[in-house]
Amino acid sequence: MIYKSSLHFETRHEMDIVDITGEVQRIVSESGVKDGMALVFCPGSTGAITTIEYEPGLLHDLPAALERVAPADIYYKHDETWHDGNGRSHVKAGIMGPDVTVPVEEGRLVLGTWQQIVFVECDIRPRSRTLIVHIVG
Amino acid sequence: MIYKSSLHFETRHEMDIVDITGEVQRIVSESGVKDGMALVFCPGSTGAITTIEYEPGLLHDLPAALERVAPADIYYKHDETWHDGNGRSHVKAGIMGPDVTVPVEEGRLVLGTWQQIVFVECDIRPRSRTLIVHIVG
Amino acid sequence: MIYKSSLHFETRHEMDIVDITGEVQRIVSESGVKDGMALVFCPGSTGAITTIEYEPGLLHDLPAALERVAPADIYYKHDETWHDGNGRSHVKAGIMGPDVTVPVEEGRLVLGTWQQIVFVECDIRPRSRTLIVHIVG
Repeated sequence: MIYKSSLHFETRHEMDIVDITGEVQRIVSESGVKDGMALVFCPGSTGAITTIEYEPGLLHDLPAALERVAPADIYYKHDETWHDGNGRSHVKAGIMGPDVTVPVEEGRLVLGTWQQIVFVECDIRPRSRTLIVHIVG
Repeated sequence: MIYKSSLHFETRHEMDIVDITGEVQRIVSESGVKDGMALVFCPGSTGAITTIEYEPGLLHDLPAALERVAPADIYYKHDETWHDGNGRSHVKAGIMGPDVTVPVEEGRLVLGTWQQIVFVECDIRPRSRTLIVHIVG
Repeated sequence: MIYKSSLHFETRHEMDIVDITGEVQRIVSESGVKDGMALVFCPGSTGAITTIEYEPGLLHDLPAALERVAPADIYYKHDETWHDGNGRSHVKAGIMGPDVTVPVEEGRLVLGTWQQIVFVECDIRPRSRTLIVHIVG
């Protein structure tokens, strides 16, 4: 059985990190699935999904690390195609990946105590985001 | 229900990035699955799967970022084991990961308008690649 | 059908990399699933799952690359929250991701000849780890 849903939110700025754990758990509960898995996917090439401890320090530290991989102050050939200045966004999102799959047991996401499912806004401006959530069980 | 398939291609050079979206969609269509998910997996430790906007600029920018993480001109201990010079390939593939799972709705992969599923050839020479695609629904 | 299991081990030090392929295959065999997929997930925000060739050289090279992304000798704001000194651990794990999904065919994980499923201990001290494994088929 597959239960299909989605969740929607606005991001506020580049490298905004959004805790979506509560929303994904709500969808798991709606689905009625007891044991299975939850796929969370970002349709879009400048956003990433992962898990992290959602606390203010890491909301700075994760972006700082990604800046070392794809700095803001270098030239990206992506700009030759679109002139939109977000080459670094695509690179960060491509390396992190657009999806995460979390196990579900007894109707609950199986996460660590300090682990949240997050969306990482890699784009250089605020965006309206819709993520796809599929529950299998 | 699980529909099993695979896709095959030759890569041309280190950091060749191959757009496999059309082939994965073809397998989704063959499977007859309307709602579910598509798992794309690389059996091999020097290739990675992710999504990106497939345009010429990023085909340069993504490899340049991975070069910052695993440069070509440093020593890798991997060489002490195999002397094959592709330590950086394993490192890049290990960080990006070998799999992506994409939701399927109404028989279509749910992707962003500018988002493609890609294989990233991290090995240092052209390779013959077979990827595994499983459709669940 | 979903078969739920878990696996447990102790890590020995920061960036200990543990080959869990045999344990995951044992769970696949126990499940009786012939064709499907195996989800391996780390409940915890300082551990990562990926695949790599498990050989001594790469056990050095992968950590060295992650050190370039999240160096040990810089300041992390995470420390202002917890004073536990493992900001770099969260960053590395967040970028690599907590999950991998591997196809199963004829009761076997479909992996490359030199490809192993590994847990990467990103935390700065030895940890007792329990991973979740769900087999779908």
